[in-house]
Amino acid sequence: MEVLNRIKNPKDIQKLSFKELEQLAEEIREFLIDNVSKTGGHLASNLGIVELTLSLLKNFDFEHDKIVFDVGHQSYVYKILTGRKDDFSTLRTYKGISGFPKREESCYDFFDTGHSSNSISACLGMARARDLQKEDYHIVSVIGDGAFTGGMVYEALNDVGFNNTKMLIILNDNQMSISSNVGGLSKCLNKVRLAPSYNKLKEKAHSSKKSYFVKTARKVKNSIKTLFFNPMFFENLGVRYVGPIDGNNLEDLNRVMKKIKNIKEPVVLHVLTTKGLGYLPALENPDSFHAVSKFDIVTGKAIQSNSDNYSNAFGESLLHLAEKDEKIVAITAAMIGGTGLSKFYKKYPERTFDVGITEPHAVTLAGGMACGGLHPIFVVYSTFLQRGFDQVLIDICMQNLPVVFAIDRAGLVGNDGKTHQGVFDLSYLNLMPNMDILAPKCTEEMEKLLSYAIHQDHPVAIRYPRGGDVLKLAPIKKVVRGRWEKVVDGNGVAILAVGKMNHYASLAMKKLNKKQKPLLINACFIKPLDEEILKEIVQKGYSVLTLEDNNILGGFGQQVLYELNKLGFHKKIKIMGYEDKFIDHGNVDELLVQEKMDVDSIVQEIQKLYT
Amino acid sequence: MEVLNRIKNPKDIQKLSFKELEQLAEEIREFLIDNVSKTGGHLASNLGIVELTLSLLKNFDFEHDKIVFDVGHQSYVYKILTGRKDDFSTLRTYKGISGFPKREESCYDFFDTGHSSNSISACLGMARARDLQKEDYHIVSVIGDGAFTGGMVYEALNDVGFNNTKMLIILNDNQMSISSNVGGLSKCLNKVRLAPSYNKLKEKAHSSKKSYFVKTARKVKNSIKTLFFNPMFFENLGVRYVGPIDGNNLEDLNRVMKKIKNIKEPVVLHVLTTKGLGYLPALENPDSFHAVSKFDIVTGKAIQSNSDNYSNAFGESLLHLAEKDEKIVAITAAMIGGTGLSKFYKKYPERTFDVGITEPHAVTLAGGMACGGLHPIFVVYSTFLQRGFDQVLIDICMQNLPVVFAIDRAGLVGNDGKTHQGVFDLSYLNLMPNMDILAPKCTEEMEKLLSYAIHQDHPVAIRYPRGGDVLKLAPIKKVVRGRWEKVVDGNGVAILAVGKMNHYASLAMKKLNKKQKPLLINACFIKPLDEEILKEIVQKGYSVLTLEDNNILGGFGQQVLYELNKLGFHKKIKIMGYEDKFIDHGNVDELLVQEKMDVDSIVQEIQKLYT
Repeated sequence: MEVLNRIKNPKDIQKLSFKELEQLAEEIREFLIDNVSKTGGHLASNLGIVELTLSLLKNFDFEHDKIVFDVGHQSYVYKILTGRKDDFSTLRTYKGISGFPKREESCYDFFDTGHSSNSISACLGMARARDLQKEDYHIVSVIGDGAFTGGMVYEALNDVGFNNTKMLIILNDNQMSISSNVGGLSKCLNKVRLAPSYNKLKEKAHSSKKSYFVKTARKVKNSIKTLFFNPMFFENLGVRYVGPIDGNNLEDLNRVMKKIKNIKEPVVLHVLTTKGLGYLPALENPDSFHAVSKFDIVTGKAIQSNSDNYSNAFGESLLHLAEKDEKIVAITAAMIGGTGLSKFYKKYPERTFDVGITEPHAVTLAGGMACGGLHPIFVVYSTFLQRGFDQVLIDICMQNLPVVFAIDRAGLVGNDGKTHQGVFDLSYLNLMPNMDILAPKCTEEMEKLLSYAIHQDHPVAIRYPRGGDVLKLAPIKKVVRGRWEKVVDGNGVAILAVGKMNHYASLAMKKLNKKQKPLLINACFIKPLDEEILKEIVQKGYSVLTLEDNNILGGFGQQVLYELNKLGFHKKIKIMGYEDKFIDHGNVDELLVQEKMDVDSIVQEIQKLYT
Repeated sequence: MEVLNRIKNPKDIQKLSFKELEQLAEEIREFLIDNVSKTGGHLASNLGIVELTLSLLKNFDFEHDKIVFDVGHQSYVYKILTGRKDDFSTLRTYKGISGFPKREESCYDFFDTGHSSNSISACLGMARARDLQKEDYHIVSVIGDGAFTGGMVYEALNDVGFNNTKMLIILNDNQMSISSNVGGLSKCLNKVRLAPSYNKLKEKAHSSKKSYFVKTARKVKNSIKTLFFNPMFFENLGVRYVGPIDGNNLEDLNRVMKKIKNIKEPVVLHVLTTKGLGYLPALENPDSFHAVSKFDIVTGKAIQSNSDNYSNAFGESLLHLAEKDEKIVAITAAMIGGTGLSKFYKKYPERTFDVGITEPHAVTLAGGMACGGLHPIFVVYSTFLQRGFDQVLIDICMQNLPVVFAIDRAGLVGNDGKTHQGVFDLSYLNLMPNMDILAPKCTEEMEKLLSYAIHQDHPVAIRYPRGGDVLKLAPIKKVVRGRWEKVVDGNGVAILAVGKMNHYASLAMKKLNKKQKPLLINACFIKPLDEEILKEIVQKGYSVLTLEDNNILGGFGQQVLYELNKLGFHKKIKIMGYEDKFIDHGNVDELLVQEKMDVDSIVQEIQKLYT
């Protein structure tokens, strides 16, 4: 790490020779692989973007200039080189540095990203602020080809083209979004990739000192000149297009960047990078190395892998149900792997629709399919469904269409942090008329709930967390609309637990003294609520504890309170959920303690209700 | 109405000669103008789309084929010709026919639209359902050039291009979205409009029997052949492009439609239509005739016009504040007129950003501007801000950026109905950390609230209704964060009223007997709540009535209940707001009665709380 250790300030990079930069690139890759193998995180995309980041730091001065990494998972190299190398071992850990850009973490970060396709909008806002205030600095958006499927990019490009403001948009084309890329635009980008000069880039890996490292692209003999690839697409929108160039070739990058940085109008620079470059397992399986948990460097295998999780339970359940009902189709927004859809996709490719990172479109597409007589299931992470809020409300719920939303990563997701916590879905879905909202209390319940969902003539959402079960719980016997399950009988206090909170509630109940025997209810329906059980609670004079892996405002507990109040409830009620704030990264257990949602906190609240 | 009266079934149109169709087109225009002058509604776009609709009905059979009108405000002609002529006088009135397509209204409507840019997604869903089920019928999306600015269009086109499914997308290019069109794409469409053949189309209006009617385009001598305009834009996305053709010329339309209807892949047909065609005032001022209230046919003037409304109050307030603070900029999504921004735009064009119908982009653009040191205000209708939900939550609130959201048309909007009611904003904004939510109780309060908002270092939303004040109320003296205003002192019952509900509460209070003197509180802060007043309410043992022009679930009242419960409140509380459903069109007063939110209902609830 001879060169890397000399970088104290990003400006030091400007002084390095190309030879030193190449050495630095290799050191950064080793540093990345070594660190991410211990912390988990996004690896493949960061390995691909080393030279581009170096080139940006060589040509721009981010004490004055600004940069926004779209999504931001590819900002590791930038973080390492802008003062966060020594903290890098704390990546994505509790109180450690974030896996995404964070303004509060560094003065070199200018916009907190995490969701896709918004960087051009943010940069255009900054550019207009700069222009109106007659300031002068550079603004750069770095955006992957995957993020380019999102409609915001087009909305922003269209606006960018409207007036000539200086900004640089770097299309970091590594030929895949999170899973493989989809759509007409991607076909079109593929044409370039088939060009002979591009193919040479693909032949560049050769073995290095350690068998699992591969040396990075050194030379493409006749380096790719500035080509004009499909300039019409961008130039129709009034944006100048330059490229594609080899984004892993420092000299090429440098030559082009020097030329274009002072163009006084918006420019798209198309660079081709290789995901996973420098690490054989990632190079060969960039998809599985997009986001990894801790792994063994030599083999590339994950150190822990738990297939007994909700995503897989969903995937298996879907497969079973789809065998019996050929109208079932699945839609995903570039998340086949993450959402457990791989097996379904393998068996039913014609019934799987990967639409790219386009949640708004995905939702309405599902609506159209439902109108056409299919049973569409949109499988999506909780935090990303936020992107389709209006479409769920207006295109699905208003029309009361039988679309199923399988909402993965609901509740705390842990290390991805603020932008990825799925703690709002119960609140934003609760306010939507016509929709049922369900949550399984264990993986074994998934198929029963999904089967219920598929057979309704109205929208249904099923939300479930990242990971798997904490305890082994017996699944519900029968799913009946608006009917909860009594898990443990008891008296004095009724615990109404949503989804995985049943596990924590069960653990908490074991810690109570023998006189305290609360009733535990699996509130498998967040909507509609079980009016019968609520009436019983009022009649029998229970105090109530509600437990949900969601923000309190607008969530399950508040709906219970509202209904209980209408029923004349006068006992104590405690609503447990997350307070009104954003929750940073860390592992889920640490965060539960921080948010006073862990087992001991639940014990305390139960005890208070008994006093 | 000789021909029109003969149309009993849409299929009758297929039998008409071109001469009869031209006659029919003229009759429809007279019918439209006559009716809309009495009901209000969307006029200019419907006048422009007469021939296109006739041509669609001549060439397709919507007993089998399907059509989706994007936004749907231009579906009047289609409604008239598909069995709803005799009910057309009830357009947009209580229990009458809707101003937008509604599946429950007619078997000829296939998707309920109202929000922009989603028709291609819906149609693609239908097309895939058709293909998977091996059915055979046509699917047509009719979408305006304004809606083409929305990112969903691009998300959908990109997906459409991915596999070859038969569908027809008609780009109805009338050279403006709701206000004038913006963005690079629009520049590009303008190139065609400057072509000589297109200019001939513009010279076609000549006077008719009544001076205010103008005869419709009859002949463009050398009718425009199928040109290929910018096919690259669409064909890059894998979608075939045909056009532009004269969309007001029946023979041209017919010739092209016959040719393309059986192409077994996605086709974009670009038609040029003239907004307002056939009615001089609308032709000359298509923008003001986009959506009109009742008007005088001869003069084209609105019968009632009330400039004393919240939109204008906002516009004036903004102008005053902007004079003192040059960092204030306004963003609108194609709504300069509707949101009261016209004067500001006229005075500060360089500080006004009309970004087209792109709410997601607009929000994040505002975020970038705030990062760049400006004070951006995004002025938007409540229902359309739903489109930017995730961007408000993640790009603005998570980063705690000082962006102001001026939310017009909050609460019931009346005649536009289901898709446009702004009854969800308090619920979907309440769940967002870091945001203040305010509502003025009268137009005179607007400037005080806006001034507060501009001076915060965090996001602030101000929501206000369509229309103006019901009563003359004295504005609040001073706006202090989280501090409510005591409007009328009283005892026994505390009424906490949001925004315009203060008017109805005041009227209700006049109807009470003399012993019932409730305290009336203007809950100008929906968030944060006034903890001091809530404590006082608990201490003094008031019963509570909350009143909000919003759905109950997740809204203001539920937050009050939650806080009161934490404070040990044991009196009665009634939460008044809208039930968990979508609310159809009608005028606001009728809807308030229907929803039991009118003055008499409020009186009853107060009385119940006193007993």
